[in-house]
Amino acid sequence: MDIDALLKQMTLDEKIDQLMQLAAFLFDGASHEGEITGPLSDLGISSQTIHNSGSVLGGSGAAEIKRIQEAHLTTNRLNIPLLIMADIIHGYKTIFPHNLALSCSFDPELVEETARIAAKEAAVSGIHVTFAPMVDLVRDPRWGRVMESTGEDPYLNSELARAFVRGFQGQDIQTSKDSVAACVKHFAAYGAIEAGRDYNTVNMSERELREVYLPGYKAALDENAQMVMTAFNTIDGKPCSGNKALMRNLLRDEWGFNGVVISDWGSIRELIPHGVAENEKEAAALAIEAGVDIEMMTSTYVSHLKELIKEGTIEESRIDESVRRILKLKQTLGLFENPYRFLDEDKAKDVIFSEEHRLVARRAAEESIVLLENDGILPINKGDDVGLIGPFAESQDLLGPWSWIGDKNDVETLAMGIKKVFSKPISISSIQSVHAIEQEELVSAIEVAKKVDTVILALGESSDMSGEGGSRSKIDLPEIQLELLKKIHEVNNNIVVVLINGRPLDLTHVTPFAKAIVEAWFPGSSGGTAIARILSGDKNPSAKLTMSFPDTVGQIPVYYNHHNTGRPLDHNNPHNRYVSKFIDGPNMPRYPFGYGLSYSSFEYSELELSQSVLRDSKTLYVSVKVKNTKERSGDEIVQLYTRDHVGEVVRPLKELKAFKKIHLESEESKTVTFAVTEEMLRYTHSDLTCYTDPGEFTVFVGTSSANTIEASFKYQIESEEK
Amino acid sequence: MDIDALLKQMTLDEKIDQLMQLAAFLFDGASHEGEITGPLSDLGISSQTIHNSGSVLGGSGAAEIKRIQEAHLTTNRLNIPLLIMADIIHGYKTIFPHNLALSCSFDPELVEETARIAAKEAAVSGIHVTFAPMVDLVRDPRWGRVMESTGEDPYLNSELARAFVRGFQGQDIQTSKDSVAACVKHFAAYGAIEAGRDYNTVNMSERELREVYLPGYKAALDENAQMVMTAFNTIDGKPCSGNKALMRNLLRDEWGFNGVVISDWGSIRELIPHGVAENEKEAAALAIEAGVDIEMMTSTYVSHLKELIKEGTIEESRIDESVRRILKLKQTLGLFENPYRFLDEDKAKDVIFSEEHRLVARRAAEESIVLLENDGILPINKGDDVGLIGPFAESQDLLGPWSWIGDKNDVETLAMGIKKVFSKPISISSIQSVHAIEQEELVSAIEVAKKVDTVILALGESSDMSGEGGSRSKIDLPEIQLELLKKIHEVNNNIVVVLINGRPLDLTHVTPFAKAIVEAWFPGSSGGTAIARILSGDKNPSAKLTMSFPDTVGQIPVYYNHHNTGRPLDHNNPHNRYVSKFIDGPNMPRYPFGYGLSYSSFEYSELELSQSVLRDSKTLYVSVKVKNTKERSGDEIVQLYTRDHVGEVVRPLKELKAFKKIHLESEESKTVTFAVTEEMLRYTHSDLTCYTDPGEFTVFVGTSSANTIEASFKYQIESEEK
Repeated sequence: MDIDALLKQMTLDEKIDQLMQLAAFLFDGASHEGEITGPLSDLGISSQTIHNSGSVLGGSGAAEIKRIQEAHLTTNRLNIPLLIMADIIHGYKTIFPHNLALSCSFDPELVEETARIAAKEAAVSGIHVTFAPMVDLVRDPRWGRVMESTGEDPYLNSELARAFVRGFQGQDIQTSKDSVAACVKHFAAYGAIEAGRDYNTVNMSERELREVYLPGYKAALDENAQMVMTAFNTIDGKPCSGNKALMRNLLRDEWGFNGVVISDWGSIRELIPHGVAENEKEAAALAIEAGVDIEMMTSTYVSHLKELIKEGTIEESRIDESVRRILKLKQTLGLFENPYRFLDEDKAKDVIFSEEHRLVARRAAEESIVLLENDGILPINKGDDVGLIGPFAESQDLLGPWSWIGDKNDVETLAMGIKKVFSKPISISSIQSVHAIEQEELVSAIEVAKKVDTVILALGESSDMSGEGGSRSKIDLPEIQLELLKKIHEVNNNIVVVLINGRPLDLTHVTPFAKAIVEAWFPGSSGGTAIARILSGDKNPSAKLTMSFPDTVGQIPVYYNHHNTGRPLDHNNPHNRYVSKFIDGPNMPRYPFGYGLSYSSFEYSELELSQSVLRDSKTLYVSVKVKNTKERSGDEIVQLYTRDHVGEVVRPLKELKAFKKIHLESEESKTVTFAVTEEMLRYTHSDLTCYTDPGEFTVFVGTSSANTIEASFKYQIESEEK
Repeated sequence: MDIDALLKQMTLDEKIDQLMQLAAFLFDGASHEGEITGPLSDLGISSQTIHNSGSVLGGSGAAEIKRIQEAHLTTNRLNIPLLIMADIIHGYKTIFPHNLALSCSFDPELVEETARIAAKEAAVSGIHVTFAPMVDLVRDPRWGRVMESTGEDPYLNSELARAFVRGFQGQDIQTSKDSVAACVKHFAAYGAIEAGRDYNTVNMSERELREVYLPGYKAALDENAQMVMTAFNTIDGKPCSGNKALMRNLLRDEWGFNGVVISDWGSIRELIPHGVAENEKEAAALAIEAGVDIEMMTSTYVSHLKELIKEGTIEESRIDESVRRILKLKQTLGLFENPYRFLDEDKAKDVIFSEEHRLVARRAAEESIVLLENDGILPINKGDDVGLIGPFAESQDLLGPWSWIGDKNDVETLAMGIKKVFSKPISISSIQSVHAIEQEELVSAIEVAKKVDTVILALGESSDMSGEGGSRSKIDLPEIQLELLKKIHEVNNNIVVVLINGRPLDLTHVTPFAKAIVEAWFPGSSGGTAIARILSGDKNPSAKLTMSFPDTVGQIPVYYNHHNTGRPLDHNNPHNRYVSKFIDGPNMPRYPFGYGLSYSSFEYSELELSQSVLRDSKTLYVSVKVKNTKERSGDEIVQLYTRDHVGEVVRPLKELKAFKKIHLESEESKTVTFAVTEEMLRYTHSDLTCYTDPGEFTVFVGTSSANTIEASFKYQIESEEK
């Protein structure tokens, strides 16, 4: 297809309509309503606009998408196929653990594999683009969307962003079978919203933005993600969807991104309530000038761009630029040759939710479950008398937010998993609600607890308590669940708490009553069996937290890669008042980044550096001996952090720079070697340039950000050596 | 005194030593240890350096200060007198309510009067400079030092900064009797520390810094404050004490400040733990280059400046510049003529803690006490049976942090105040600790509560729970006090809670049990009587909060002048999920900025604008009728806010622009008129320039930031009119 020739055939109206994206339910041929997340009021658009639209949002299932595309091609004058886009966030119908959970695997290959499967299921259903990965770096567990993120670390965030993109797009989006184009979001820094309250204000310096928040997006684009979605939030007073400095100067001009930029749901018209546009026309002008190509779910472009061009405010070439990008993406995806791409109704039946996929989902869940506490009660002997109690005992609400194609009826519950894995029949006492408990439920729960050896108490948040619009000002478990825990504890203190939830929680009132705590997150389609296999020890847990669990909500933000301050807390002198601390609680989170227990135990020793000075383009090799000192074989995520002691600006106390997942048999030792290069040590200086200062560094290697052994080296620029 | 001639006589060592500030207890003649707030370890300085020092920190009382200065003049080769500096924050010996409390008076004249008295008492004691005003804008009640601030509003912050400076310095620092020089602090943005944890990191955009945080400091300098103190914190990775962009480019070059800049306690050496200097020498170089003239309590200057000059890193002229500023300040204060200035041991006895001063302290407390809740139980009939219970019933801990010269033994307790004001004897049941309650104390409290008509329950934070190093991760009352409240409520529900505390608290567990809540803060030397007069109605409360009281700690930061976001919460449609809100609590604070009850009730009506369009240099007059609808006369703080609907960057929903305190007899009405000019509407654009955009504005007038009536006007630039 000759894009320029096609563009020439298009009327101005047709071009403008190409920039419109509406939900599938508005299209001819639609049958199903997608997950609607924005205030959708009267858009005032004509059916002509719908017929000319360039893309569609949502649409579930091959049959519906096929009908929509077919109908579209009959009504679209130039036979330009629709781009079919949808939110495939952590699986299509086979639902994997949500992204924050999955990130705890520290396993880019696994992440890629899950994205690959999601892409297969989506592609065969006719979807061309997924609004993923979401790579917003997060430090505030009050925000509901932390469940969609990969946590608080810029490096891990970047590595996993790349893995997601590779999984969705395959080796080459143009040629890879069953690929869907990735749309990295939300550009930028949506994760830094104030008070963790969704859609709220973001303010930070540009240096902080570049150093901490942007690397994830950049990594996804370096991996060739085809699209970028704007964020709802402002940055320093400018809403991203109308932020030219961000969307054009930085993204386009500096980073050279040539793909399609799409607004978030309604975020162009939201420039009005934000208070930077007086009306839709101004909103349209700001967004198009900022470089936003597609407007999602509001109609300021179709209503006003023509007028803006006529009066000379916007050049028609600016519209051509956006249309060209959209047509180019259609070309890249081969839609002009085959508008259905990989859509295949028959094949869909075999591919979607296949046993193979569900096994990967189970494995992904097993690799994502973090063992937070264990006094030895875990693993549970399969022949023990086990009682399963709580709102998540038999709940099918294990998929978590953003799993709209997933079917709860397909979910393996915890009860099902335990029945499958344990040899002895278990006693079950379910509670219907996460927020309330009936008297008879309580009586039954206590009865069960009294008669068994071990209680598995499955507590947590329902899926509507996190996700978009799911911000909480309190991050503990609902009161009623804490009371249940206490009451069970009165009759049986052999309690294993299994947590189902989408964010780091305040576990102040859980830890005193639990002999073990298993953070299972929303484990997805095969979650029940995965949890059961962890509990039984069939699978030895290995996941590590990627977001700190605060001691209490009043500690937020708390994250491992913070600064030292001028008056750091000296743990040897805790009573000194005039240091940076709280007088009523710890500085440290309850569970830090990188933390997670195993049924094995790993001993770190013999940390050795290949040399004491790293020069310019050379490589420093860091090796460490890791030994599994327990009888049980297991996996360990070996983490490498550095500290740059003196910077032109303050450097974090620790920064993750590398990690490796290794398997160790009982009593086995392995030497793990990492390569450290100058490139890994660069940081953004106050003039926004990025390089490494010569000087002293510490390298830390260990089992969590708070439990490491260390050594020192110097970085030297060769030309500056004496 | 010819400063340049003197400078020429000084050796380099003498010049460098002139930049040193040490605590009084290190000086010959000292007798008393000041309030030490930093890690003071071995400084490694010689007695010669002390003899050559340019200034001294602390020193209490005329006699000691006189001895120190006398001794100094005998040991200083050139007879250069010491500058005597001290933290006189909210009173010298007559202690006024702490600054956050006092700000609730919305009364710059009163603030000035208190600062004037503090200056009188300090000046007669030989103090030349006070480390005040502290004008750090605050949004996080976890920070202990919010008690030193004047709250969350840039405009009020600025007005009160000016009032403090006028009070300390008088009309003209050179000629005003009993003046002390003001040192505005902490430059800059110390109030924005992350998580409210003292000394922690600050990050924000430069635009936000200029728009929200800097106006207070600038106002103090516009009022001719003689000195500036650096802040402990970083801003965007640069610790303020070594931040050249902030301390030199902005403060000196852009703002033209020629006065003395001093570090905070130890903050130059703290450049090392911050991680921007490798050692003391680098710290000294960064600070001197940033333009910090005086080093407080560490010795990097005296240990390393000479070497830095010798090796050519620092020009000697840079040292001369700082010395010249210090000598100039001594000249301005007339110290070369009279190094004792207003020091007068005999007069001190009459001036300090005089009855006149204590009466002002009482009045200041009365104007600072905020009535948060009242179902009609207040005022209390003086003949009623009243019981006074709680840890603050007879506590003398009413002065609050930063009142080191104040004597708790001089404090009027609440019991004393109530006995003085009420006609009938009261029953008292004290509790010794804010954190614990003895069984017999509880029994006695319940007994008292049972037999009286009304319980006054005096609860709160001890003074060490706020102030420097007093950050809390929980901001509710200590658990034991909440239990006491509940137990009292079981036997007598006529409870008036009086709060003594230094920060906005979470009152979730107080409001259900109290018929009235009186926020008395730390009311100072005459606090007991002031509170009693409020309780009895002898004084009708009129103060308004200057910092929002969060609903819970998980809402932080919460402040009135926030942005709208793109998806504001619609109170008419509270169940819409996809808006900016918490799913488990309100967006609004429990008590907003500007809120405070009275025994009167004020009705606002007839809001009128002199014209509908404000042009350039013209003035728009806003008038409103305020009527006292109750039988009791009272004062009302009438508040004017504006909203700029569309900005180049997002504008706050409301911004305080003016306020007036008026007195209204019962049933009296007054028309209050405000002048609104273009200058008041300016804001900092993304290019950091400050001007007003033409467009639509709303003006709100009312009794709190959340309770206003409104009208609209347009701002138009004349040249742009058709």
